[in-house]
Amino acid sequence: MATPPQTRNPELRKDPVTNRWVIFSPARAKRPSDFKSKSPENPNNNSSSSCPFCIGNEHQCAPEIFRVPPDPNWKLRVIENLYPALSRKLEHPNVQSGDSSNDLGGWGRVVPGFGFHDVVIETPVHSVQLSDLEPSEIGDVLIAYKRRIEQIKQFDSIKYIQVFKNHGASAGASMSHSHSQIIALPIVPPNVSARLDGMKEYFNQTGKCSLCEVQSKDLLINETSHFITIAPFAASFPFEIWITPRYHSSHFDELDKEKAVDLGRLLKLILKKMALQLNNPPFNFMIHDSPVQVTDSELLYSHWFLQIIPQLTGVGGFELGSGCYINPVFPDDAAKILRELNVPIEG
Amino acid sequence: MATPPQTRNPELRKDPVTNRWVIFSPARAKRPSDFKSKSPENPNNNSSSSCPFCIGNEHQCAPEIFRVPPDPNWKLRVIENLYPALSRKLEHPNVQSGDSSNDLGGWGRVVPGFGFHDVVIETPVHSVQLSDLEPSEIGDVLIAYKRRIEQIKQFDSIKYIQVFKNHGASAGASMSHSHSQIIALPIVPPNVSARLDGMKEYFNQTGKCSLCEVQSKDLLINETSHFITIAPFAASFPFEIWITPRYHSSHFDELDKEKAVDLGRLLKLILKKMALQLNNPPFNFMIHDSPVQVTDSELLYSHWFLQIIPQLTGVGGFELGSGCYINPVFPDDAAKILRELNVPIEG
Repeated sequence: MATPPQTRNPELRKDPVTNRWVIFSPARAKRPSDFKSKSPENPNNNSSSSCPFCIGNEHQCAPEIFRVPPDPNWKLRVIENLYPALSRKLEHPNVQSGDSSNDLGGWGRVVPGFGFHDVVIETPVHSVQLSDLEPSEIGDVLIAYKRRIEQIKQFDSIKYIQVFKNHGASAGASMSHSHSQIIALPIVPPNVSARLDGMKEYFNQTGKCSLCEVQSKDLLINETSHFITIAPFAASFPFEIWITPRYHSSHFDELDKEKAVDLGRLLKLILKKMALQLNNPPFNFMIHDSPVQVTDSELLYSHWFLQIIPQLTGVGGFELGSGCYINPVFPDDAAKILRELNVPIEG
Repeated sequence: MATPPQTRNPELRKDPVTNRWVIFSPARAKRPSDFKSKSPENPNNNSSSSCPFCIGNEHQCAPEIFRVPPDPNWKLRVIENLYPALSRKLEHPNVQSGDSSNDLGGWGRVVPGFGFHDVVIETPVHSVQLSDLEPSEIGDVLIAYKRRIEQIKQFDSIKYIQVFKNHGASAGASMSHSHSQIIALPIVPPNVSARLDGMKEYFNQTGKCSLCEVQSKDLLINETSHFITIAPFAASFPFEIWITPRYHSSHFDELDKEKAVDLGRLLKLILKKMALQLNNPPFNFMIHDSPVQVTDSELLYSHWFLQIIPQLTGVGGFELGSGCYINPVFPDDAAKILRELNVPIEG
């Protein structure tokens, strides 16, 4: 017989990093430890014979940008997306914030869709997932992100670069072969502006970076030399996880090889824990970075982090309308469960 | 043989109402007229014998707030949600914007989860959907929203009231019996703040309300005496639709009976068109209102509207990370298709 669910009262929380309100409402849910994905991913069942991301099928892909190592036996490839959201062939707009030169009759603003949309194929082998790789191999994927960011930010008209991964069809992945994506935009997108506003406000009030602040032990999951994993104070989603550098860093591309392997180890650990605890859920991860074309000295308040969202609950009209999420699991409950889970990691 | 998809270039647009950027990227999509839901709803197939929202099963529901008409043969009921996101039994917080009295050690903010979460059962009959009702009956549902808003706004600690409808399981509806919901919050949620900032900025620049401005004919779908339906200039989703009052009105609860029937007629028409064109998709609608406790004279720039989002595409890591949506259908293409569709409406 299951024990009755806990009876914590609902609570609203606002996170100074995301600058968003979240409703914590445990009464709507089962016990936190009972959360499982109803649509677990079994990507290894897919056929690889027709997969353009598999080694040997490179000719089926859009043009390659680089591969590592640069020979036929590659371990990862960065290629153009065959169906890019933005075009690298358009004129380069230069959008300044507050610039109204592109106003449409004074009403809305229009900017040509110049930008980059790339794919990082994380492994040559169809059945291998990111969390199956060695920490140093995950480090190589992270260094590939860094290298591509360094290339793209040479374009003055690119204002923000979003690195993300969709794992599982219901998390938006149209290909089952393990990959991540990079979209480079000619504008600073709304979530980034809101986050920077929130972090700047905190910095102005306290003189400190909100993510350099010591996190509550109740929210801590794991830590390595250079990184910590936490359940964020105002998580929008159940079992949402952040990995943040323990050192102040506003731009992801400051990552060096040693730190990349360290981050690879922690990312592998938390993905393994998530798969075990939550029944291999579809998930997304996103690197929340600072805008490019802004120097670090202007960004003392901004600290990049990697956010992981397992897909366990849907979104409805309330969230679409208000932008306020309802999370049935308090982050300290999620952190405790993931902290106490024992998953050995080699490498 | 299908004609090839159109080749409009990708474009970014910012809407002064929502204050958000959207990427229009037709290259990623089939032709706009080929968009169909892959998971159409067949709600009439559900069993009604065990449905607590059906007439005769009232005892299975949480407490009733009111019914219309007030006798056993009701046509609609407003009840408490059995699993409320917020609690009407907690202390009433009074959150002022900028108030830091609820800071948690100076880091994040916490507010007790006081609020209301109600359900509007739109019909006593299980197999009837909102768009099956007569315009005057839909008007009664809209007047029930108004009446409940007028009751809830008496609580000074309530700052915003979100009315919304989830139709179909994948749009978040846990019950197939036609219903909508009302959540009343002790804070102004983030999308509302962003929208008010956008509309205020437009007003300050032009002296005009952005939604009173004449909309481009290319975006117009239908109109009645008091309302218009449009595909919004920077729609976040394919075939997203707004219904806006043609008269300036900042608060939904200014709606009178005559206008409610007029809005009911237009809502019925557009829901019928959407079901026909898009293969009966799951959908959400949301009323984007102004905060309560703010008088109309302070809100010359704010104009309520009803937003309808058919569920045709998923959301992935890019949207979760950046807050920027990728829409494969230009709104003028969606508007043309829906405008030219002929669906006769009686009543």
